[in-house]
Amino acid sequence: MKILITGGAGFIGQRLAKALLERGELNGKPIDEIVLLDITLPGDAALTNHARVRAAKGDISDRAVLESYIDDRTEAVFHLAAIVSGQAEADFDLGMKINLDASRALLEVCHAKGHKPRVVFTSSVAVYGGTLPDVVQDDTALNPQSSYGTQKAIAELLLCDYTRRGYIDGRVLRLPTISVRPGKPNAAASSFASGIIREPLKGERSTCPVDGATRVWLLSPRGAVEALIAGCEIDRAKLGNRPVLNLPGLSVSVNEMIEALREVAGEDTMKLIDFQRDERIEKIVSTWPGAWNTARAEQLGLTGDKNFADVIRAFIDENRS
Amino acid sequence: MKILITGGAGFIGQRLAKALLERGELNGKPIDEIVLLDITLPGDAALTNHARVRAAKGDISDRAVLESYIDDRTEAVFHLAAIVSGQAEADFDLGMKINLDASRALLEVCHAKGHKPRVVFTSSVAVYGGTLPDVVQDDTALNPQSSYGTQKAIAELLLCDYTRRGYIDGRVLRLPTISVRPGKPNAAASSFASGIIREPLKGERSTCPVDGATRVWLLSPRGAVEALIAGCEIDRAKLGNRPVLNLPGLSVSVNEMIEALREVAGEDTMKLIDFQRDERIEKIVSTWPGAWNTARAEQLGLTGDKNFADVIRAFIDENRS
Repeated sequence: MKILITGGAGFIGQRLAKALLERGELNGKPIDEIVLLDITLPGDAALTNHARVRAAKGDISDRAVLESYIDDRTEAVFHLAAIVSGQAEADFDLGMKINLDASRALLEVCHAKGHKPRVVFTSSVAVYGGTLPDVVQDDTALNPQSSYGTQKAIAELLLCDYTRRGYIDGRVLRLPTISVRPGKPNAAASSFASGIIREPLKGERSTCPVDGATRVWLLSPRGAVEALIAGCEIDRAKLGNRPVLNLPGLSVSVNEMIEALREVAGEDTMKLIDFQRDERIEKIVSTWPGAWNTARAEQLGLTGDKNFADVIRAFIDENRS
Repeated sequence: MKILITGGAGFIGQRLAKALLERGELNGKPIDEIVLLDITLPGDAALTNHARVRAAKGDISDRAVLESYIDDRTEAVFHLAAIVSGQAEADFDLGMKINLDASRALLEVCHAKGHKPRVVFTSSVAVYGGTLPDVVQDDTALNPQSSYGTQKAIAELLLCDYTRRGYIDGRVLRLPTISVRPGKPNAAASSFASGIIREPLKGERSTCPVDGATRVWLLSPRGAVEALIAGCEIDRAKLGNRPVLNLPGLSVSVNEMIEALREVAGEDTMKLIDFQRDERIEKIVSTWPGAWNTARAEQLGLTGDKNFADVIRAFIDENRS
């Protein structure tokens, strides 16, 4: 089988590809090729040089690009490519083009092939907003308060309808905020949730733009990759008329994250965090749920992380040079 | 001010136009022109000949058409045009084109004008589905089980985001099933909810495709028109971050509808209804809620009908030749 990963040069895309190569199979079938499609090529040479990896540079909002990388042997698509929250809020048209139009084109191209590929779509806490219960339930209404959240919610609805009609075999995985991401800060409103751990561990100062009491819902990169693969392997029949899963995460306050950093890396590291509130970011992040009920995902075999200190330890481990 | 009504040749569109002409003003401003845009011209000559009415034939999925009927003086748009549920299920592409793409183009054209017109969008019970509480609440998740419901839910999300960004002043009114509609059956899955009253009143037989215990959520044409006008006049500030309202309706079973018909028109009329279940229609209708909590709409001054027998009496009154 062939697998397509959009956003394949991204951090999660590359980790997912490596995990899939290690397994060698998906849904019980050997993996012959993994296409990593993105606007840039992946940085990891071990990956791009791998015999079963095809790194492709292309714009997913161009249907011809999608058509050239999806064929009858493409049995799984992980659609990770997105314009992140901060950028989609700043550049409305770009967010619509990639988060909505390209997602729709992807579904259309998959549908046109006629063999119902599994399409795993990553959605987000950002589909929620407004007045929320402390713990968001499966039947809590979506009320996105950002253009990113709106576009993700719309792509979810499209994927569900294409699945209901039998055009594809789609699954929506709503991801908690991924932390700790390696690399540099990005334009996501949630970028600080990695920055306040990552930068201090390098001995650099980091600014936290939200109040310490702010509760976030986190998943480690390893947890995210495991969930993507498990989500792709769930039997269609078990998903019923609702192929949307809120993934397990850790509900922690920013202060608790910082306390975990102190526990793992000491007082001096922790002191490298400065608080400087940024209203633009706070406005977006404060509308996201700090926790949601994940009973359904757990019943289907999806698990999350144990505690945030362990997540930090794993991050240190994985990024040791 | 100018008002645009898409679907303006439709039954509700024409009634809305007449009600607006009678009032002479909207949001405290005199109405200079009402554009009735539709793929056909309205049948009511009194309306098309009216000095302040402009009847326009055009395809709303063509942006140039929208641009030619929306200008700086267009201060209110009632977006009623839609491919109905049964047809959108049978012709997926057509539903996407009109219910989604045309709705988005309408929002874009309104945004481009820069004066934030009020846009009243009619949505539907069909945005709900799956396992539902007996009475759907404001925060019950949307889970549409038809392409029509999906497209309506997506257009709602777009309208909310355009409103949140300050591009337009949008309002979503989720309408109960409109009953009793005059005229002929249409391709809506809910067509029977008018047919089983209208046809027997003409002395004709009518087929009910769903079980008598099926609960529907109904609003009279008069109630719908009143709600559209009231919805357009609600102060922006009172809608907060959620410009979506579930309109008051009557929760009645099909058997109760038939009992009301007997009460108003007698035993013989009532006996003109045949039950013949149609799986395709039952499948769509059974996923719609039979009632929803309308406290928010009521607080904002929106009201519904008192009882279904009175709705039938008003229908008879209005359609006396």
